[in-house]
This record gives sequence, structure tokens and C-alpha cells, in this order.
Amino acid sequence: MKYGIALFPNKTIQDVANSYRKRYDTHYALIPPHITLKEPFELIDDERDELILNLKKIANKTKPFQISIQKVSSFQPLSNTIYLKVEPVDELTTLHEKLHTGKLPNNRKHPFVPHITIGQNMNDVEFSDVYATCRMQKFNLKDTIDRFQLLYQLENGSWTVYETFVFGDEKI
Amino acid sequence: MKYGIALFPNKTIQDVANSYRKRYDTHYALIPPHITLKEPFELIDDERDELILNLKKIANKTKPFQISIQKVSSFQPLSNTIYLKVEPVDELTTLHEKLHTGKLPNNRKHPFVPHITIGQNMNDVEFSDVYATCRMQKFNLKDTIDRFQLLYQLENGSWTVYETFVFGDEKI
Repeated sequence: MKYGIALFPNKTIQDVANSYRKRYDTHYALIPPHITLKEPFELIDDERDELILNLKKIANKTKPFQISIQKVSSFQPLSNTIYLKVEPVDELTTLHEKLHTGKLPNNRKHPFVPHITIGQNMNDVEFSDVYATCRMQKFNLKDTIDRFQLLYQLENGSWTVYETFVFGDEKI
Repeated sequence: MKYGIALFPNKTIQDVANSYRKRYDTHYALIPPHITLKEPFELIDDERDELILNLKKIANKTKPFQISIQKVSSFQPLSNTIYLKVEPVDELTTLHEKLHTGKLPNNRKHPFVPHITIGQNMNDVEFSDVYATCRMQKFNLKDTIDRFQLLYQLENGSWTVYETFVFGDEKI
């Protein structure tokens, strides 16, 4: 089965992202607005319990941290993807690093650029139009991140949450 | 914010459900296939931590249990909703009961009929056609349920998972 690890920002940020995604993101219906922490990777069921144990250990040792979003950016010329740029903070980079080292598969293909996709798979003309408009927009969105999610992919390409990992020690 | 509690059956069951939902369920893009355990209810942020503590206590005292799906049924004449009928088992009824008593809001409107919706909001003619076909279908789907999920609703009507509650004691 194909798994991925992501975090969902708060409702305010998700609502802003969806106002763009509805028109410009072909994955709009497949997953809520998210920051990908680990790209999709294959795992057999037997390996899942060990993965989860490792994810719990990582979450237990992570403290909640702030993120902020101020503008839109794009991966051009690599791709026509448009995204809400999540200002890089050490805590996010460290979390990403931990999810690719030790007992976790290192499936990194690109340097980590924290982002929330709001448009993808547009043709060049549409991309230029949309990006010209979006990049003028300024934001002042903040959130405290205190959890990440392990998801798996269904046949139709959509993602279901398997488990949530809340930062810090378990309270009960 | 509007919250709901649901459980996601395994990928096999979700894929079967989606093969129908894609054509017949207007909520197809809003949430993965699920069994609703608690209908949407309003909660302010301050109340959420206490809710979560109560949900953890319930999950810790619940043991994994089997569900099975053998056929399609419908809520007619109440509504034109078509669903995969989840054979009622005591564990599921008890869990539903616990999610509506004690410190949890009792927002029950109907008797609990465990189901996975695969079609809704069809007109009468479409409903009759689709239901006549679906009800002939026999299934032999089984799953072990070992968790439920707290979700919240975004402005566009879609649902994001806030937290997963795994049955039994925390392992670490």
C-alpha cells in the first residue's frame, strides 16, 4: 500500500488554500490542504507497526512550533505548481529530516521546500495568468503545529488518514 | 467549528464503496468512505481538549472488533440514501452509545444503523434504477476495527482528520 506523511494546517489556512485549489488544483478532491512531510512510499502491512512505533517516538520528542505564510510562490521552471510558501523554520526542517533517517525510508527526491500546493497541472498560459495574480497577494497566516498524520492512498488516488501523531508525551 | 466522529474501514472496503460513490454520492469528494459514529456537532476550541481526553478514555477501554458487510440497503422511505449495510455487532453499538453519553453531547437524531453511504441525493427515478441493481449484489467484506477518528469540517463542506483514537492502552 502507498503511504505518505503530511500535516494539516488549521482551518483558516485550509480554507484560504481551498479557495484557490477549487479552481486551480487537480488534487482538490483527493486530500485536504496539507504540507507534505514525506513523499509517498510503499509499505507492506507487516512493516506498518514498526513504522508507527518510530513515528510515535519522533512525535514524542517534537515540541509544537509556529509556522507562518506570507506569500505565494512557484516551482517554476521545474513545474507549474503554485503554492502557499511556508516560511522555513528549523523545527519543520528537523522534523522532515527525522522522517527520512534512522529506520525510516529515505525517499527524498528534492530539497525540502515546505509548502501548501494551491495550483498544479495547469498549462503554461493558465499558469502565467494565475501566478501573476496570486503572487501579488500578501498573507499573514500563522499556525501552531502540534501533530502530523500518516495517510494511505486509495485506488481512486485519494488519501485516508491512518493515524495522527501528536507532539509530546501521551497525556493518558 | 463543526466536528464529527467516524471510522474508516480498510482500503478494500473503501475502494468498493468508492466504485459506487464516484457515480452516486454527491459527498464523494468531501470525505473518504466511512461509518459515522457521531453526527456533526458544534464545539468551541476551548471545549476540544476535554472532548479529546474523553475520546481517549473511551478508545483505551475499547477492544478491536470485527465488522462484516454482505449487502446493500437503503433508508427509503426516509431518504434515498443507499449504503453498504454493516452487520450490527454489540461492540459497534456500545461504541456509538459511549460517544453519546457521559460528558459527550447527546446529539442523536435517529436510531443507530451502522452503514457506509454509497449513494445519496438522487432523484426518485435514479434511486430506483441504482438501488434495483445494487441490492442484487452480494458482498463478503470483513474488517477489524481498531480506531476511530475525530474530524472537522472546512468551509467547502469537506472533512479533515484532527485526531485518531486507537483502541487499547498506549504502547509508548
